[in-house]
Amino acid sequence: MRLSRYFLPVLKENPAEAQIVSHRYMLRAGMIKQQAAGIYSWLPLGYRVLRRIEQIVHEEQQRAGHIPLLMPTLQPADLWRESGRYDDYGQEMLRIKDRHDRDMLYGPTNEEMITDIFRAHVGSYKDLPLTLYHIQWKFRDEVRPRFGVMRGREFLMKDGYNFDVDRDAALHAYNRHMVSYLRSYERMGLTAIPMRAASGPIGGDNTHEFLVLANTGESEVFYDDRVTALKLGARDIDYDDRGQVAAVCEEFTTLYARTDETHDAALFDQIPEEHRKVGRGIEVGQIFYFGTKYSESMGATVVTADGSRVPVEMGSHGIGVSRLLGAIIEASHDDKGIIWPEGVTPFPVGIVNLKQGDGSTDLACEGIYKGLAAKGLEALYDDRDERAGAKFATMDLIGLPWRITVGPRGLAAGKVELTCRRTGTSEEMSPEAAVARVASIYAGV
Amino acid sequence: MRLSRYFLPVLKENPAEAQIVSHRYMLRAGMIKQQAAGIYSWLPLGYRVLRRIEQIVHEEQQRAGHIPLLMPTLQPADLWRESGRYDDYGQEMLRIKDRHDRDMLYGPTNEEMITDIFRAHVGSYKDLPLTLYHIQWKFRDEVRPRFGVMRGREFLMKDGYNFDVDRDAALHAYNRHMVSYLRSYERMGLTAIPMRAASGPIGGDNTHEFLVLANTGESEVFYDDRVTALKLGARDIDYDDRGQVAAVCEEFTTLYARTDETHDAALFDQIPEEHRKVGRGIEVGQIFYFGTKYSESMGATVVTADGSRVPVEMGSHGIGVSRLLGAIIEASHDDKGIIWPEGVTPFPVGIVNLKQGDGSTDLACEGIYKGLAAKGLEALYDDRDERAGAKFATMDLIGLPWRITVGPRGLAAGKVELTCRRTGTSEEMSPEAAVARVASIYAGV
Repeated sequence: MRLSRYFLPVLKENPAEAQIVSHRYMLRAGMIKQQAAGIYSWLPLGYRVLRRIEQIVHEEQQRAGHIPLLMPTLQPADLWRESGRYDDYGQEMLRIKDRHDRDMLYGPTNEEMITDIFRAHVGSYKDLPLTLYHIQWKFRDEVRPRFGVMRGREFLMKDGYNFDVDRDAALHAYNRHMVSYLRSYERMGLTAIPMRAASGPIGGDNTHEFLVLANTGESEVFYDDRVTALKLGARDIDYDDRGQVAAVCEEFTTLYARTDETHDAALFDQIPEEHRKVGRGIEVGQIFYFGTKYSESMGATVVTADGSRVPVEMGSHGIGVSRLLGAIIEASHDDKGIIWPEGVTPFPVGIVNLKQGDGSTDLACEGIYKGLAAKGLEALYDDRDERAGAKFATMDLIGLPWRITVGPRGLAAGKVELTCRRTGTSEEMSPEAAVARVASIYAGV
Repeated sequence: MRLSRYFLPVLKENPAEAQIVSHRYMLRAGMIKQQAAGIYSWLPLGYRVLRRIEQIVHEEQQRAGHIPLLMPTLQPADLWRESGRYDDYGQEMLRIKDRHDRDMLYGPTNEEMITDIFRAHVGSYKDLPLTLYHIQWKFRDEVRPRFGVMRGREFLMKDGYNFDVDRDAALHAYNRHMVSYLRSYERMGLTAIPMRAASGPIGGDNTHEFLVLANTGESEVFYDDRVTALKLGARDIDYDDRGQVAAVCEEFTTLYARTDETHDAALFDQIPEEHRKVGRGIEVGQIFYFGTKYSESMGATVVTADGSRVPVEMGSHGIGVSRLLGAIIEASHDDKGIIWPEGVTPFPVGIVNLKQGDGSTDLACEGIYKGLAAKGLEALYDDRDERAGAKFATMDLIGLPWRITVGPRGLAAGKVELTCRRTGTSEEMSPEAAVARVASIYAGV
């Protein structure tokens, strides 16, 4: 993408309304625009990151054998009357009347609707196990929306629902979700710690939240800091292997890590003092096993191998897709701007032309731009007629992990500069070597 | 995808509520489930086609230089009060009050919001031309939703908006949209004819609708049938070349083709009788040039090269993404089911194992399945323990364009059967040749 043809409205000033760094940088980097309290447009740069995160979630859910579909944003109230949640949900539910005066609502979550789909089409244990998920806009009418996309009202969420014939199979689905979530967050460059949590209005007794450590987090967290060193890495997971999946979950949940809701001071005190940490965390996902709570009230049953009819065992599992942009920025920035992890960056690399209009720098930049494109990498090429300082400031603010700087002096010696946004270190090399290096960095992403 | 692990709830009976063939087949093929009048869940098979269509629209818009973003589904009423459309729009607009009693609405279109984004960030002719688009769920509260996704209430639409400094540039944007739309529809296997149309509530005096000929279309159309033979084909378009783009538009709009709204009987009678046709069409897109209608009322201006300030020239351009599934099926089916064009099919090919559980057929099917995957093609493998007739009926109903049938008799001679859904013709060949043939068919898609 050539910046002269893009729409990247960066702001020089800090917007007064933004209280936390992610909100500030998302506004300044031209990623979002508020349209109403807690309701945002995703400008082109923000939209690219949103799509990257969505893509990772899709890939990891499908790798775990989960099947995508798409439920609508609006739901009939009657489904929620069946489960008993229509009255329970309170003012956070956005209630709507259509032109025929029928009660509708903007879905805040989808347990009722997915149960309705299941009961309409599935009746036998032979069709199980089944996990269906979607990534769709939801609405919760927060009293006081704040912190940008971190606590918006219209937000994008992945929510998945498992249907299993018995408790053991449902717990395997729960574990499968935990592992697929760990992998998703790692690919986004995040350390998200699964913490035992309280269940809230979804229900159920087995639930973990995934928290990203950050000073601006809404939850107080208590943990053994050795938990932050755990990594899935590139290990191969067979999601059908119950034992292997359970072992990974055990590895990640044995060390103490809890939110204030489930904190146990006596257990916490048993952690060696040098590893005992109190901090704050941002919730970026939650998984629930809740058994037959919805299937019983809504009549979602299956016939088992012995011919009896039982309510299906269920769980639900969510990732806050739009909120993740804020969480990633909270976890990865400096005083110049955002620092995107390679896995979610809107563009893999930026090209800064120090002397736009100069024949040789223009030619070199075009060559690098096309060389990267030939390797499947779309660079953001700053081809504007601007001074170097302004170009660097924009690149630092929007946070592309790598930058190639092309100037007449370097070119005379056959060199361009490759700079790492995170470390600030630069290295001179030929244009071809810079293209090859960037391609090799992204080969594993 | 192995069918034993998929969620494909096909129906044997014709659903009573479906009046047209696309609605009937989408329900029977387990593509959609109605959740309320005109509001659907997209079950896994339907969701895959929806994503394919979305992908084609994204690719062709970006090829034309148009930039994606994403606006929210809910909008504040105040924006629509500025343009004067809040009161004009009538009962089709779904009006909502949030918990603080603020007037909101579920966006039926986005002229106001995109103009708001533009005026907040752009002020100079140097930032033009600019075309922004999104693909987002919209809502129109139809009195009588019907025909499945063809006239739903919650529907997915691509809507794009061009901003230009003068009328000539805006007309070039209009033409660019026409060409990019023609290419999009062709990739979906559709002949969509641009017809001069009336402008309706969007406004403006230059507008074309794109219509797919089908007996179930809602519009009466009058045309010279030589227009249906026009093809863009693989020709290379330089979207910056105003002359080239205008010439393509002229090629596609010179022959007579109009809806009843703009029909001119005198002109129609001049068509040679053998080419003069009256039929019905389904509208799958519309483009508008409306000049300064919104920029004037909402104060979206730019400074021109000579320092004066003028309201920006605009147009808006829409493709009915979810409705296209219905339109494609109306245009491409037989009495056994859907016939997907290769460009939008949910799976490129189906594999039917005639003797599930037989060592050699299972092994051959696995080999074909993996061979296709190695070439980037995800087959739908019917690995269920079902009789051949049921497997064939399912494949015909869901309409994958190609099927590979694997049975013990053929395998004994080293052969499998490759069948074309559209023609019904079959050819015997080795498993490797079948994989190679399918890969070559999709190489150009």
